[in-house]
Amino acid sequence: MTNTVETQWKGNMAFDATVSGHHVMMDAAAEVGGEDCGARPKQLMLAALAGCTGMDVVSILKKMKIEPEDFKITVEGNLTEEHPKYYDKMHIVYTFKGKDLDVDKIRKAIELSQEKYCGVSAVYKKTMPVTYEIVLLPL
Amino acid sequence: MTNTVETQWKGNMAFDATVSGHHVMMDAAAEVGGEDCGARPKQLMLAALAGCTGMDVVSILKKMKIEPEDFKITVEGNLTEEHPKYYDKMHIVYTFKGKDLDVDKIRKAIELSQEKYCGVSAVYKKTMPVTYEIVLLPL
Repeated sequence: MTNTVETQWKGNMAFDATVSGHHVMMDAAAEVGGEDCGARPKQLMLAALAGCTGMDVVSILKKMKIEPEDFKITVEGNLTEEHPKYYDKMHIVYTFKGKDLDVDKIRKAIELSQEKYCGVSAVYKKTMPVTYEIVLLPL
Repeated sequence: MTNTVETQWKGNMAFDATVSGHHVMMDAAAEVGGEDCGARPKQLMLAALAGCTGMDVVSILKKMKIEPEDFKITVEGNLTEEHPKYYDKMHIVYTFKGKDLDVDKIRKAIELSQEKYCGVSAVYKKTMPVTYEIVLLPL
């Protein structure tokens, strides 16, 4: 199967990508000649990882009859210093809030995503360490 | 340097990522339990590539005193069929419209992006072939 994304230049450093029918604006920061009217493209790599593993985790938890009150994913990417500046390490923090959350089931859901389902993680892990931690906050 | 993206679960399969201060909504398609209120996360990997190389190319062309009338980038990603479903091949089509466009300079700008500057391409190319073609359309 092929996925296609069309991206239109909007002048200067701004680009408008149509991603599965939804517009995603990208732009550079003012200090490098952009106008900050959209996301930095490289950082979309981190959002892609969060969304992909996040969707896995909520669907697996749903099958386990677990619904957290709140769920947040923080992805940190370490950038190299010389051109091309690329991510050489990523770390994911999965933070759940809820009452009586079952840590073993949550850990299992995340392991399934990281080891079996998440296609974004699968690509990144071929080139860099992708680590994670789980934070459970009681309500 | 570290980049951080925070992503908040919005219920069901929807996630709201804050990418360099800009909200990027992600959601699954209805047929897999989502409500299609945002982009598919995996496809953001293709947008990231388009935006990253696109910004390189327009800044290099600007230094070369070349400003196309129109510039579009199509990125196709080939998905594997078994879980984890991931991209194992990408192809970029750079399409320029303009009067008397200098194909050699445009090719040079794209080569510089692909070989030296684009940090998204640098990661993907470690795991899969990333090919490209250039289309010049006269005005």
